[in-house]
Amino acid sequence: MKQLFWAAALCLAAPVLAQPTGDLGLIVERASGSLLVVDQSERAAIGRIEGLGDLSHASLVYSPDERFAYVFGRDGGLTKVDILERSVVNRVMQAGNSIGGAISDDGRLVAVSNYEPGGVRVFDAETLEMVADIPTGSKTIGLVDIPGSKFVFSLWDAGETWIADLSGESPQITRIEGMGANPYDALVTGDGRTYIAGLFGADHLTALDLWQDQPTPQPILPGYAAGREGLPVYKMPHLEGWALAGTDFVLPAVGQHEVLWVDSRTLEETGRTATHGQPVFAMARPDGRQVWVNFAHPDNDTIQVIDTVSKEVIHQFTPGPGVLHMEFTPRGREVWLSVRDSGKVMVYDTQSFEKLAEFDAESPSGIFFTARAHKTGL
Amino acid sequence: MKQLFWAAALCLAAPVLAQPTGDLGLIVERASGSLLVVDQSERAAIGRIEGLGDLSHASLVYSPDERFAYVFGRDGGLTKVDILERSVVNRVMQAGNSIGGAISDDGRLVAVSNYEPGGVRVFDAETLEMVADIPTGSKTIGLVDIPGSKFVFSLWDAGETWIADLSGESPQITRIEGMGANPYDALVTGDGRTYIAGLFGADHLTALDLWQDQPTPQPILPGYAAGREGLPVYKMPHLEGWALAGTDFVLPAVGQHEVLWVDSRTLEETGRTATHGQPVFAMARPDGRQVWVNFAHPDNDTIQVIDTVSKEVIHQFTPGPGVLHMEFTPRGREVWLSVRDSGKVMVYDTQSFEKLAEFDAESPSGIFFTARAHKTGL
Repeated sequence: MKQLFWAAALCLAAPVLAQPTGDLGLIVERASGSLLVVDQSERAAIGRIEGLGDLSHASLVYSPDERFAYVFGRDGGLTKVDILERSVVNRVMQAGNSIGGAISDDGRLVAVSNYEPGGVRVFDAETLEMVADIPTGSKTIGLVDIPGSKFVFSLWDAGETWIADLSGESPQITRIEGMGANPYDALVTGDGRTYIAGLFGADHLTALDLWQDQPTPQPILPGYAAGREGLPVYKMPHLEGWALAGTDFVLPAVGQHEVLWVDSRTLEETGRTATHGQPVFAMARPDGRQVWVNFAHPDNDTIQVIDTVSKEVIHQFTPGPGVLHMEFTPRGREVWLSVRDSGKVMVYDTQSFEKLAEFDAESPSGIFFTARAHKTGL
Repeated sequence: MKQLFWAAALCLAAPVLAQPTGDLGLIVERASGSLLVVDQSERAAIGRIEGLGDLSHASLVYSPDERFAYVFGRDGGLTKVDILERSVVNRVMQAGNSIGGAISDDGRLVAVSNYEPGGVRVFDAETLEMVADIPTGSKTIGLVDIPGSKFVFSLWDAGETWIADLSGESPQITRIEGMGANPYDALVTGDGRTYIAGLFGADHLTALDLWQDQPTPQPILPGYAAGREGLPVYKMPHLEGWALAGTDFVLPAVGQHEVLWVDSRTLEETGRTATHGQPVFAMARPDGRQVWVNFAHPDNDTIQVIDTVSKEVIHQFTPGPGVLHMEFTPRGREVWLSVRDSGKVMVYDTQSFEKLAEFDAESPSGIFFTARAHKTGL
């Protein structure tokens, strides 16, 4: 009876346990196949979700209500998790080897990009039932969502980019040839207009204006490393690190100790900034005034901060060994860093550069805040 | 005993009642002083919060966790509401007559702009205790937040813009003179860089580059209505309707049946589009590809949609009498309209222009989705 009384009392108190989701996030713990649930306002972990399989190079997207995440594992697993209940809702092995995914602008479709077999598979966001299978005969990379229930992706083997329109009964495909040899990653700008593919087999990148009726490939930064000895590439830069900083995009240069600045309208190079090591992510603070850069081994203990106006390094520090990823709070006041080999997540103020908090995590890598739910192409 | 059993059973079931907040919103019901709590995914109202006082021309901002809203009433009331519990948490009468507010980038400070007495007052977001009082000797308008715990606002009587830095013990004020006669509204771009004030006493607008160490006023669209007979202004356009559409800003022209396009870098006019009536809001869909326009009386039953590339009207329809406000879902797939004199909120697909849903509301006006929590200057 006493237990029942307390249960009832707890029940009456239930509303105060209500948990908003706007300031939550998930951090990939790659070694243990788990996700740490974090609260940005508390600057702390508040839970863990386990049983996600192989999470090396895992990424995820959020449902529009910021309650569910769809996790894309390297092992081909697609897992839907509930961050309020901290549980796995559903999990399907949709391919042998996959490399990222996206969610449609209406939140109804989740698409996954696959190496084995190549192609893209599209799933109902509610049930994870497959609703479309788009074989490409190629490893498929750089999958992003754009407005109108459309997805864009590129074919490593064929050097093509495809636009798949999922708004009707069956997918309508637009093929764009001549993107260049071996696209290895791609991004779309926040407005869903400009798609940029990095090429492994060519000394430039290729852009598409998706607002054109028939988008035509446009080379960017042709020969940007010509005449200079390339350094060994320890880690290919992530293009999702591209971001608009003021009027320019910032790009981590492949095999060089520098970042490149490209005018966002003309796509012409506007400058280069020498850096501490080979950049992996060059991420603009949401307001674009600063760019934060991390580096490949053996320089992956360091962060540099570049001012967008002067294009100069204004701050450098050493959070610890293995800084793998950064994520800004949505309005850019704080930045969270995964410091894998310290087993720590660290939180810094981007105005004062002061460390505000740190907490433990198991080999943390990707950090994903729920505000991504509201953005195109993330 | 049986009741207790059921209470306990309900308690065990409590987690399924968990409510994420990423797809919620509030709609101002001006006649009844209430807020309708809405769910974007359900396309429906899910609750109501009452007792807000005078909500004519009310606006609101959200806490970073998307749980609390701070409502700025015309009567000087500042009310904190909880959208999960659907209750008023706190309410202070902070002035006699106020005109909007903002929340700092760290979510800790809420600032309110006042007519009576003039000036800005700053409150602790947790407790609503006043932490700073900034008298200006003038009606104060166009209050926005920018990165670094700063607020920017303009003085109707003095033609000045002030930047208040609240990051330290006491506010540090930077005064910028020469903004022009009688600024009546202002906005800041999503990156917090460009502040633009509309002027009642001059035939142009004035811009500031807030990334400059000493921002200097720059006129925009000088004499844009010169040589043409001005129409009677039934309603001053809202500058928060300005938005980046492609490479341009779109501006509702004062006293004319047109919208103006301004290059976002040079601030030069790039075009004009004739419209059905005097525009009130010209709002870009989040991806910038479309601009939706509503109009002043007697044309306020109509919406026009303009394509950003062609700058031509591509769609026109008549939702009903008194279309007061529009809000896009965060990724732009849907738009919600307040149709005051029908007592309806209507939801449209922005790709097909199909009406997806409508539901009742008491004289609905401003619509505010929680995703605003993650944006600068909203």
